[in-house]
Formats: sequence, C-alpha cells, structure tokens
Amino acid sequence: MKYLLTAFLLSAAVGAGAQIRPAENLVQYVNPIIGTQRMGHTYPGATVPFGMVQLSPETDTAGYELNGKYNPDVYKYCAGYQYDDKTIVGFSHTHFSGTGHSDLGDFLIMPTIGALKLNPGTADKPGSGYRSAFSHQNEVSQANYYKVKLDASNIIAEMTTSTRVGFHQYTFPKSDQSHIILDLMAGIYNYPDKNVWTYLKVLNDSTVVGYRQTNGWARTRTLYFAMSFSKPFYQHGYKKYDKREVYGGFWGKFNQTKNFPEIAGRQIRSYFDFKTEEGEKIKIKFALSPVSMDGALNNMRAEIPGWDFDKVKNDGQQQWEKELHKIVIQGSKETKENFYTSMYHAMINPTIYMDADGQYKGLDQNVHKADGFTNYTTFSMWDTYRALHPLFNIIDPKRNADMVQSMLVHFDQSPEKMLPIWSNSGNENWCMSGYHSVTVLADAVVKGNAPFDANKALDACIATARHRDYEGIGSYIDMGYIPDEKSGVSVSSTLEYAFDDWAIAQMAKKLNRNDIYEEFIKRSQNYKNMYDAKAGFMRPKLADGTFRQKFDPLSTINEGFIEGNSWNYTLFAPQDPQGLIKLMGGNKRFVGYLDSLFTMNLPDKYFAETEDITRDGIIGNYVHGNEPSHHVAYLYNWTDKPWKTQERVRMILPRMYKPTPDGLGGNDDTGQMSAWYIFSSLGFYPVAPGSDQYSTGSPAVDGAVINLDNGKTFKINVKNQSLKNVYVQKMVLNGKILSGLFISHADIMNGGEITFYMGSKHK
Amino acid sequence: MKYLLTAFLLSAAVGAGAQIRPAENLVQYVNPIIGTQRMGHTYPGATVPFGMVQLSPETDTAGYELNGKYNPDVYKYCAGYQYDDKTIVGFSHTHFSGTGHSDLGDFLIMPTIGALKLNPGTADKPGSGYRSAFSHQNEVSQANYYKVKLDASNIIAEMTTSTRVGFHQYTFPKSDQSHIILDLMAGIYNYPDKNVWTYLKVLNDSTVVGYRQTNGWARTRTLYFAMSFSKPFYQHGYKKYDKREVYGGFWGKFNQTKNFPEIAGRQIRSYFDFKTEEGEKIKIKFALSPVSMDGALNNMRAEIPGWDFDKVKNDGQQQWEKELHKIVIQGSKETKENFYTSMYHAMINPTIYMDADGQYKGLDQNVHKADGFTNYTTFSMWDTYRALHPLFNIIDPKRNADMVQSMLVHFDQSPEKMLPIWSNSGNENWCMSGYHSVTVLADAVVKGNAPFDANKALDACIATARHRDYEGIGSYIDMGYIPDEKSGVSVSSTLEYAFDDWAIAQMAKKLNRNDIYEEFIKRSQNYKNMYDAKAGFMRPKLADGTFRQKFDPLSTINEGFIEGNSWNYTLFAPQDPQGLIKLMGGNKRFVGYLDSLFTMNLPDKYFAETEDITRDGIIGNYVHGNEPSHHVAYLYNWTDKPWKTQERVRMILPRMYKPTPDGLGGNDDTGQMSAWYIFSSLGFYPVAPGSDQYSTGSPAVDGAVINLDNGKTFKINVKNQSLKNVYVQKMVLNGKILSGLFISHADIMNGGEITFYMGSKHK
Repeated sequence: MKYLLTAFLLSAAVGAGAQIRPAENLVQYVNPIIGTQRMGHTYPGATVPFGMVQLSPETDTAGYELNGKYNPDVYKYCAGYQYDDKTIVGFSHTHFSGTGHSDLGDFLIMPTIGALKLNPGTADKPGSGYRSAFSHQNEVSQANYYKVKLDASNIIAEMTTSTRVGFHQYTFPKSDQSHIILDLMAGIYNYPDKNVWTYLKVLNDSTVVGYRQTNGWARTRTLYFAMSFSKPFYQHGYKKYDKREVYGGFWGKFNQTKNFPEIAGRQIRSYFDFKTEEGEKIKIKFALSPVSMDGALNNMRAEIPGWDFDKVKNDGQQQWEKELHKIVIQGSKETKENFYTSMYHAMINPTIYMDADGQYKGLDQNVHKADGFTNYTTFSMWDTYRALHPLFNIIDPKRNADMVQSMLVHFDQSPEKMLPIWSNSGNENWCMSGYHSVTVLADAVVKGNAPFDANKALDACIATARHRDYEGIGSYIDMGYIPDEKSGVSVSSTLEYAFDDWAIAQMAKKLNRNDIYEEFIKRSQNYKNMYDAKAGFMRPKLADGTFRQKFDPLSTINEGFIEGNSWNYTLFAPQDPQGLIKLMGGNKRFVGYLDSLFTMNLPDKYFAETEDITRDGIIGNYVHGNEPSHHVAYLYNWTDKPWKTQERVRMILPRMYKPTPDGLGGNDDTGQMSAWYIFSSLGFYPVAPGSDQYSTGSPAVDGAVINLDNGKTFKINVKNQSLKNVYVQKMVLNGKILSGLFISHADIMNGGEITFYMGSKHK
Repeated sequence: MKYLLTAFLLSAAVGAGAQIRPAENLVQYVNPIIGTQRMGHTYPGATVPFGMVQLSPETDTAGYELNGKYNPDVYKYCAGYQYDDKTIVGFSHTHFSGTGHSDLGDFLIMPTIGALKLNPGTADKPGSGYRSAFSHQNEVSQANYYKVKLDASNIIAEMTTSTRVGFHQYTFPKSDQSHIILDLMAGIYNYPDKNVWTYLKVLNDSTVVGYRQTNGWARTRTLYFAMSFSKPFYQHGYKKYDKREVYGGFWGKFNQTKNFPEIAGRQIRSYFDFKTEEGEKIKIKFALSPVSMDGALNNMRAEIPGWDFDKVKNDGQQQWEKELHKIVIQGSKETKENFYTSMYHAMINPTIYMDADGQYKGLDQNVHKADGFTNYTTFSMWDTYRALHPLFNIIDPKRNADMVQSMLVHFDQSPEKMLPIWSNSGNENWCMSGYHSVTVLADAVVKGNAPFDANKALDACIATARHRDYEGIGSYIDMGYIPDEKSGVSVSSTLEYAFDDWAIAQMAKKLNRNDIYEEFIKRSQNYKNMYDAKAGFMRPKLADGTFRQKFDPLSTINEGFIEGNSWNYTLFAPQDPQGLIKLMGGNKRFVGYLDSLFTMNLPDKYFAETEDITRDGIIGNYVHGNEPSHHVAYLYNWTDKPWKTQERVRMILPRMYKPTPDGLGGNDDTGQMSAWYIFSSLGFYPVAPGSDQYSTGSPAVDGAVINLDNGKTFKINVKNQSLKNVYVQKMVLNGKILSGLFISHADIMNGGEITFYMGSKHK
C-alpha cells in the first residue's frame, strides 16, 4: 500500500502514464448523496477539502417561519437539499454539512428559459416560478462535481469549485430568452429581517460584485461575492421586495430595475439575460470573500484565472484523492463507499475562512491577516472534539494545528474571551454545551502536535473554563455541580465540564503547570456529584444538595440533559471509566447497565422527544445519531467483557452507516459521525481525547494503511474479519502481542503495523 | 495687515509672548449661533475646519415620520438644533451645516443623574426622559467649543474636537447615580428601518467601540466609533428596542443587558454608570472612522493621546485662527461677526472623510487608501460650485485641489460613472440638479490650480455630461433641451446643463481639446431653447417644440424649475450675460426685468411654495435664500447701469446676513450662502465659475488683506464706504485705474492691491 501511495503521488506530480501500476482512484467511492435523505443533513453539491465554497442544489425554500410561526419542517433543510424532493430551486454557495441547525445558503443561482419568473414558486405547482423538477436518474454527485438536468428547461447544470470559487456550467437549449437568476433573498433558515442588507453592482457586461449581510445563527455576518460570466449578458435587471423603499435619497431619478449598475436594499432578486444556441454553455465563476468585494475579485483571479471547467473539477478531485489516500483501505465496494464517503464528510468542515491574501474578518469585526496559519471557521465543537479533531491529529496534524491557531485568534478576538463553542462565519453562535475547544487544544498538546504557543493555549483554556458567567460555570466552580435551578441542562453540562477539565489537566501536566493540573484534575471528578446512587443514574440536583424529585431517565426533555437522556449521559465520564464503574456499583452492574442500554425497548414516546436522528439512529436506547454516547460501545474495554465492545461496534457500523441516500442514522454533525466510522472501522477509537491512548475495537476493513505526513506509514492488517468474525482473537503490534486493549498515538505516528486476528467467537 | 499675519503665525509657532503686537484674535468674531434659529440650519456645536466630527447638541428627536406619515416639521432639524427649543436631548457627533435635507446625528451622548431613563422623553414633559431643559444664558458657542448647563442635572457639558475625535467634558454634581447614555437609535431624519444594524463592544472599563449602519440619504453607510472615558465606569448596560429578537443564535445564555461585553441589533441604547463627587469631571474621547473600529481607535491615538481638554480646544481654535486669517478685514464689530462667522461656515464643509492613516470607504464600498491627497465628502455641488469652491481656489487652492481629487476618485468608484451630485458619507444621494462638479473641475483647471491629471478630470466631466440616462441628458443632447414630458424640472436642468457645458468648454479650451470645446460650447447655448420670447420667460417646452400652455412665472411648483420660479431662473445664463440680454430684448428691457425682480411684491401664496428660506430671505421676488439667483445682482454689470449691482449687493448684504440667531435668510447650504457674503463684502464675485474673471460689486468692509498661500497678499483698500456710500466712484488696481468692471484671478493671485473709492451717488 505504501507503494500505491507513492505511485499516486508520483502520478499527481508527473501526470498519468508514468507509473507502472496506478494508485486506485478513491474519489470513485465518494458518494455525496449518502445522508441526503432524512436526517443526515449532508448535501450533494461540490466542494474541495475544507473549502470556503460549498456549491450545492437547494430543493426547497422552507423558511424558519411559516405564516409568522416557527416552521417545524425547517430542520429538514439544514443542508438545503432533501433527497425525496422533486424540484430544485437553484444552486447556492454555502452549506453546512450535517448540522442540526442552520444558516447560509448564500447567493442562489438558477438558470431558466422562456418568460422570466423571479419567484421560486412552489414545488406542488410546476411552472409557478423559477424552480424546476428534476430526477435522480439525471443527477451525478461526486466529490467536487455535481450535475443535474433541470426538467423545466432541459438545461444541464454542472458545478465544481476551488477553495474560494464556485464554478457553474450551464448547457442551454436554443433560446432567445435564457436567464441566469441570482436570488439574494434566498437563504437557508430564512425569516423576515434575516437579510440585514444586500448590495449588487454590475461592473461590466460580464462581471458582478456584491454582498449579503445577515442576522441569523451568525449574529453579524457579511459575505461578499464576485461573479463572472463566460459570455456577456445583453441585459440585466433587479426586483426589490422590500416592504418600504429607501427614504431620502433620490435614486428614483433612475430606472433602477433594468440595466442599472447597482442596487441596494434588504430583499433583492436579479437576473442576467442571454440568447443561447442549442447546447451553448454559459459558465459562471462565483468567488466568495469574508472581507470585501475586492477580496472576492482577487480570490477569483488567484484561484481560477481561466474558464476550463474540467481542469477546475479535476484539480479539486485531485485534492480529494490526496486527502483520501491518507488512509488506503482494503474491503468490499460497499465498505469503501462507506469509508471514503466518511473520509469526504470528515474533510468538509471546519471550513477555510480567509481570502487568498490571508485577510479575514475576525470575531471582533475587524479585518485581520492570518499570520503563518490558515484561518478556519465552522467549529461545531460539541460534536467534533470527540473523534474528528483526533482524526486530524493523525492524518493531517498541520491542518489541525492551524485549526487550533484559528481557535486561539477566535479567543483573542472574542469580546467574551472564550474559545469557540460553535463558530459560524467568524461569529460565535453559542450553540450546544461544554467548552470543548479546550479538549481539542489539549489533545494537540498532549499528542505533541503543538506548533503554536502551548502555554498561551492553556491560558485560553483556563480563561474559558473559569468564565463564571457562562452556563453555570460559576456554580460549577463553587459547588462542584450546576444546580437544576440554574440551568435546563445542568447535568450534561456538569458532566461535560468535568471531562473538559480533565483535558485541561492533561495539558497542564504536559506543560508542567502543576497548580493548574491540580485545580482541573480535581474539577474533573465533579461528574460524581451528579450521580444518584439510589436511582443508579446521573440526575438533576438542586442547590440544596438534594436530587430533584421529578426524574425520568429515559426522557430528553426538561431532565437536565442536552440531546440525550440520563440513561445515555450517565455513562459520560470518558476521562475516568474506572471511577465511573466503581461509582455505578462495580463491573457486573456496569456491564448489565451497558447491555440494557443496547437491548432495551425504548417506547416511541421517548424517541419522539429526541432531535436530529431517525428511528434507525437508535439501538435499544443507545442513541448513535447524537454524540454523547459515541464512546459508550468502547466502555466494555474497562470491564471483564471487552469482546462486547467488539460486538457492539460491529453491530453499530452497518446499522448506522449505509451507502444509500438514507444511510446515515442522524446528522453527520460536520463530520463527527463520519470520524466515528473511520476510527471504528479501522479498529480503534479515541475514547478520551486529551489522552494519547486509543481504545481498540473490531476492525471492519480487511486492511488499511495510514499514510502519515511525517513520511511514515501505520499499517493495519486484518486477518479473517467478516460480519461474523467480529471478535478479536489476538492483536500483534510491530511483532509483539498486544497485551492490553489500547494503542498509543506514538505507536501510530512512529509508523509500524498492527495485525488483528479475528474470529467468530469471543475470547 | 501682512505684518499682523506674520505675527500671528509667529505666535502660533513660538507661543504667546514673543510678538510685539499680537495679531488680532479672529475666533472671537465667530458666532456659531448665527443661523440656528429658523431657516439657517447651522449648528452651534464644535468642529475644526473641514472636520470629520461635528459635535453639537440636539434639541429634538423629530423623526422623518410622525405616526407613519411624513413629518412636515422635520426639516427644522436638519442640523439637529433649533434655537427656540427649550430642551437638549444630547450631543451627537455628525451634522450637516446649513442643508435643507438631512441624515447623520450619529452617536448621541447624554449625561444624567438619578434614576436611569433610557428614553429621551418629550420636550413638553420635563423629566419624562433623559432630555434636559437649558437656557441660552448658560450656553457658550465658539469655533470648536460649546458649553451648556443642563438644568435637569446641573451638569456642565463642554465639548471640543480634533479632526476625527469629539472630546466631551462633563462636570457632574455629587451623585451615586451618574450616567453617560450612548443612544445608538438616535439620528437626524430618523424613521423606522433607518438603522440597518448597530453594534457596540466594551473593550474594558473605559473603552467602547462599535458602529451604526444606516439606510438614509446615504443609502449604504456605516460609521464606526471608539469611545474612551477618563474614568472607569463601574457598570454598564444596554436596552434593545428591536421589534423582534435575533433568531438562531443562543445569546440568551447570557444576561446581555448588564455588564456584557457586546450587543448587536437594530435599535440599541446603552449606558455607563459612575459615582461622582461634586464638580468631578468625566471626559470622553469619541473617535469616528468610515473604515473600522480599529480605524477609530487609531484615529483617537493619533489625534488625542492625552486628556487635556483645553489643549484640544485651543489647538482647534488655533486651526480656526489660521483659516480665518486668510482674509483679515477692517470693519465694525458687527461686520467682523458676519464676516468671520461666514468664513467659519464656509470652512465646515466639505468634510474630511478618511482615517488618520489615509484609509477611507469608497463609493464602491471597498476600502481605499488616499494616495497623495486628503479625501473629502459632503459635496453639495448644486450649492457650492457657485462661490464656495471659487473661494477655496483663492484662499486654499491646495485644499480645493484635494477636493477635486476626491471628486475624481468618487467618479472612478461610482457605478454610474458620474462625478458627484451630492456626496454624503462616501455615498451619492443624487440630490438637486445639474452636474456642477464639472464646473468645480473647470474652475480649478482654468485658474491654474490643477495639481491633478487635468485631462483625466476633463474625461470625467465629459462622461458625466454625456450620461444619457441621467435626468434628461439624453433628450438634452438630442433636442437641445429637456422636454417637459421627460422631467419635472426640465427648464432649470436645461439651463444648468448649458452652464456646466460652458465650463467644460472652457476647460477643454485650456487643455487644447478643441473637439470637446466645440461640442460643449455649442451645448452651452442650449439655454436659449427654453426662452419664450412672447412670454419673456424661460418656460417648459413640450417634446413637439411648443411651449407648455400652463405656466406661471411666479410659481415654483410644477413649473419645470427646482427651488426657484421662472422669474428668477430666466436669468440663469451666467456663462453668457450678453447673449441673455440680447435674447431678452436688449439692455433696457433687461434692466427693467432685473428691477422688477427686486421691487415687485410677491404674493404670499408664492412665498409659501418656496423651500428652505424665511420671508426675510426674499427681496421682492429675488430669492437669496436659495442659490439660483446668487449671480443675479451682478448682472447689472453687463448693462448700462452697473451701479445698480453695487446698490443691490449692499441692499442684500445687511438684509440677508445678521449677527443674530435668526440672521440667515435661508439655509446656509454647506457654506455657499456664506461664500456669497465673503466675496460680496470684499467687493467682487465669481459670476461664472469656470472663467478667471470676477465681477466687481461694492465692498462692505473698510479694507481687507487676502493672505495667499503662495506667500503673496492681495490688499483691498476701501475709501469712504458706508451704508450710504455704496457706489463705486473709481477702482485702482496696482496703481492703475480699472477701466472695466472685472478683475482676474491672476490679479489676485499675483498679489497687489485694489482700491475702491466709494461715494453716496452712483457714477
């Protein structure tokens, strides 16, 4: 496999034809359609790894509100596209991958022919607007390439991207009325007043710039664009949908609706008209910038100077090949589809957030220049600290360090002086709980991947963890737990803080900051304060130290937990499984508790309360579709029945990850679900990021090579695994039998090999 | 007088005490209160010459709308302050001087004590809000200094400025509840939705930054600030008045109303609390930037590093002294008050629009750096091309050239590719008519003040004048006039275009661009196409070449003119008085026409139709309070009765300019009214800017020295003038009797002297 990668890199360097045996194309196994049906919340469109542009179709314009009230269906459109929909509204340039709440959907482009319709219309009335029916038969979705036929116009829409530029290619029929619509009103999670201001300026007959300023999940956000057409439009126009016209100015002197160079307002749609021959292609380069219109123009010049669609597509797919080849597996086609689509989904977020010249808009709303690092945003920390960042620490440590740098400048620029909770477009949206950035920083430092000021990073962690005003931290510090009176998620937050505190302690230990180690290792034991030994569960505790009377360990609503019930969260002490086992009554009771979790029959009413998952996203009462239990299957490793870890992991893998549109059992959550798949199918998992240990499980691949960027490889040999042979008989690490159930980060990064010997019976 | 200036400059250089006979302090004659009552629309607050900050009290919060409808009283508050009002709402940082439409009023500060009131309350209910009663007895208004006692709190408010920083000094009584309110909702010409977005960030216990983004007369505008207190506040808070809260984010985790570091929304008020001792001063430095919050902080550091209020006040007053000394006059105290207040009002606008580091936000909404010039905004071209820019060409040619440079970058950045019509905060608001920037450019080029690319400037003029889509220019080019069907101001626009075209022709001639000269000198005769010889007036003409039936030469409403009636506008051909006289039937009829204009009795119903002037702003039917007739008194110079020019000018001067709050007969119009005063009281006037000729009148001073920045002086000796001795008996220029009625720009700029011999009878 080492040879294969070398051959691949060689081929990338010298072009096809030079190598004897080409590296396998891995992009072929990426299927972005996976997860687009139901709850995966992935999108089928085009992006390069960690790209600022995510160019993808929208199948509805569901607003956050419907007739003035919250629209309960809006969550379906977090990624803009739902596989079951029959129409496409257009193609917009920004998307989250796998989130359960949303924003973005900026700059919707739609090509049409015939009479101009500037409203999208509704899916149930074909022809009522610019939207078009489409069919999955006429759809191609690849890494960095999306193609679909729009039935309403027979236009073939194709799209690809570079990091900061979306590249559209529309093949038109013959028409004297060919239109490209740019809808600046459209957006994901839209509602009245979401658009704070929009602006559009026509520089010449083929270049347009502008911006959209929104108040949404990102509270104060402006995204700039520059748009270039391959063919001049012969006319253009706008329509404003503002409730009231601008006062004071005398813009009424002009006919601003047609062939006017600029327009500004809150709600604007625009169109650009062409006459096309049969089969004529109109291409659009659409560059983004978080800084300025000039920045967007410069990004376009820097990344796509010409008009070669195939080159841009291929360049982007080569980027993906390079990323995918970091782990080359052996396995069935289905396994490879699952694996490489997981790799793909794991490398979409976080996203690059700076111009080609290094400038970016900071959290302080000033423009900064990234000094010696690449700046990222889209940090969904509650999800990704668990396995995604640990994965990056193995396969892309430099990038992970840049992400840490981005978190540190976020901290510096944060008026609240906190590390990111959920960073969206250089804004903090405070979504979810804990302060898990500290774990990402600790994980990097503990694993020796800290080409940044590690002590400054620790200081940022300490400041964040001592932020008394944030979500009960003050009470937590004073009392060792968050009283139920103070927070609706007092139990899960206490548990999460305790874990994060342990990670801070590990980092402090590594940096010889003993006073900090002592402070935070003590705090890390706070999880015990939530445990009610009588009930056998973590449960809400009142300020007076007594447990709250009302309590249902199966419910996720108003029980003191976020996205999980007590049954699942009671197991949340990844930093101290042995302590947890003791707390919960010892090995036998603990194994029984774990078994029940996976095998119990959860009444439907409890399922209805959970968010962001499908019915398939749950096994018994084990909720894989949300994150708090992602370490749980591995906890058997601390009991006398580690084979149950192997069994459970191999049960979860095929049930939660299928190479089908509905293949994901819950939101992919910016790659965390995918990262779980990648680790688990390779045979190990970072139960406690912040330590350098991985817990072994049961590999589902037939072999793998991790190509490390230090030039070494870590090879995973798997003997005899199958859907039946899920039990590890023996593990041999670099020729020595592995006596325990753990491998270390150094074992991997130093290169070498591990061999799993598998069998159908547990040892 | 030359000696005096030298002494003054010496004293400025080496400090007081060194000179034998000090230059007269001229700032003492500046009375910013002049024009604050009724229609002057000036403001009494503090500013330095052409300063970006204009820190001045607001006496009302009149909105552009009242109960959802246009508020007919809003025009009174163009400058925020009306002398007759009894209460002050607060002190804001940006104001237009003398305009008839408005915007601005950014960042209102108000100090209070006692229970916190965050609403301004109403003037008729004292104590209903944070506003306070005040008395003119307790008010001091000087160039760059304003002081008032706030009766509600006994707080003494003082303010001064540097170019980009407002400096407040509040002397408090003893109080445990002392507040500084910063109202981000307040503004001049406010209405729902005017605030697009506001943001405020507390950096530490004495530093705050933020911005206000508005959609008003300037369509797309953001002004940033940085605010520094001399004493730490012990707590702070905000109140949001948004109709609906932000969606999506989870800011509700915090108590954002109190001691929180940041707030964002559309409608925000904030407060900062102190405990004060009797007589304790709290000072505030409040810096502005059109670029960023960092830019504002940097402006503060660059301009006012310390806390010495008196030094900032004195520095600014020394700037004023320097500017005022450019023309040192002899005359009565009243004359000096009128003259130096006019000088003061003439040097407020245009305003500097760039940061201390040269960065500014361009019309293209990108950030630029001014390369080798100072960037200005607030160009009210319809007003100021007449006399204000010609005045600058004499007393401050370098600054006028920078203003031209600013107009040229405006052109470069303009999506419509036009020179400024009315530039407000780096936006174009398209207010008023004509394309008079071309005249300012031509005037500078013709007068040899063109340290810029004059041919590029001419190209910008040509592009502007050929902009067929703008206000009937297409018809004007094709037909020689704008048909009444095409425009509500077809006649005045045709007349104004013809004048501007003549200016372009003069510029082209100077630059040897003969084809352009021919094109535009021909266009400059288009004024004749509007003249109906039968009626004896300029009047609306239909597309078929016939004059419109409905016509009332005394009315300003729907008669084809802007801010003027046909009686006045018929005289608008300053480029060709001789041609006009011929057109209107020769010398005798023309003199009769002029006489009637000044002596007729205009029925009240016609006065009621005029805008922006008081009843005093009109003499007969001559409307001095608006600009179109500013050259008219000088037209007698082309007849056989030039003494009537002298008579009329001396009649207008004392009637239209008095050193009292109600002393201005109409809007000062960013200094044009004042520039008329300055020229006319010195004895000459630029009837046709774009020529190098000045028409002589009747000096109302007893002598003057113009201190030119080329080191030369032009001395004006006036023998024997008085309110009776208004007739020029003889003029001697550099020892030679002046045979005609004109002096040239070179006569002035080369230095020398003119002596007016005055008498009580006309020659």
